[in-house]
Amino acid sequence: MDLSEFHGFLSNRTSIRSYTGEEVEPEAIAFILSCASTAPSAGNLESWDVVIVTDPDRRSQLAEAALDQVHVAEAPVVLVVCANYVRSMSRYGDRGILYALCDASIAATYMMLAAHSSGLGTCWTGAFDDEEVRSVLDLPQHIRPVVLLTVGPGEQTSGLTARLPVEEHVHLESW
Amino acid sequence: MDLSEFHGFLSNRTSIRSYTGEEVEPEAIAFILSCASTAPSAGNLESWDVVIVTDPDRRSQLAEAALDQVHVAEAPVVLVVCANYVRSMSRYGDRGILYALCDASIAATYMMLAAHSSGLGTCWTGAFDDEEVRSVLDLPQHIRPVVLLTVGPGEQTSGLTARLPVEEHVHLESW
Repeated sequence: MDLSEFHGFLSNRTSIRSYTGEEVEPEAIAFILSCASTAPSAGNLESWDVVIVTDPDRRSQLAEAALDQVHVAEAPVVLVVCANYVRSMSRYGDRGILYALCDASIAATYMMLAAHSSGLGTCWTGAFDDEEVRSVLDLPQHIRPVVLLTVGPGEQTSGLTARLPVEEHVHLESW
Repeated sequence: MDLSEFHGFLSNRTSIRSYTGEEVEPEAIAFILSCASTAPSAGNLESWDVVIVTDPDRRSQLAEAALDQVHVAEAPVVLVVCANYVRSMSRYGDRGILYALCDASIAATYMMLAAHSSGLGTCWTGAFDDEEVRSVLDLPQHIRPVVLLTVGPGEQTSGLTARLPVEEHVHLESW
């Protein structure tokens, strides 16, 4: 892949919290999920699950669980990506907690970039009450919601926010 | 971006544990880090750090810390991506632990895909002893190593391993 094109692709993604109200085609969701399934995972266990939420009432309940962030209610689709602790811990014990959180984060990153490649906006929404989200979605206790990824046609209102200079969190050979 | 091209790009990435012994150009590392800095993070705090390890002795020590996985010693570059708990918890308290783990995982996913776009192989290596890695790299206690991402010119020995059918971890509207 052309490097400057790939860098531009990543740089053009910003968090979208303003949605047009248009729907997302089922084919677009299928594409996003198909991309996510190519993500690596610890031991190839794919210790993640996703709940696709489109129902407006449930989106509103999720928005409440997310400290009243309105974009969660307004986005036509919310992909609730979860760590499946049992799937990972059954092989790896306590270490499986880290693995499941990473598996879910990698898969959600793939979803975010797949949506972006489809021209859809996303917002990685991490601020929510775990128990309220569990209650809204009937998640078992061994399933931890990691991110509410809102997805939909949206309006980009600004460019990438300022980033730390690379050298501020890069270390050579040791800390 | 063309959807089938993007899907193919993701599908063509597999974990590479066999390296040719060729070096990685500094420009390639700079490109990978520049891509990672465009990743989203909770509150734009970028609560991740990375230690770039190229020294052969230190790579061998990391391989030992990683349960003697030889590819960690053989890869010319190991990017040790870490969660910076203090950076995140200073704003978000205990919730910052999840955010820092996600921030590090997202940034490492960007690094993995940026390396892939450069024609370099990677292996997301999560199995290691945290304290041994801390010791090898002089990491402070508030820095948690999340992944040893090995990077280098490599030989792809197989295609993508079999994946779960999408429907096995996808749920509609609720669990």
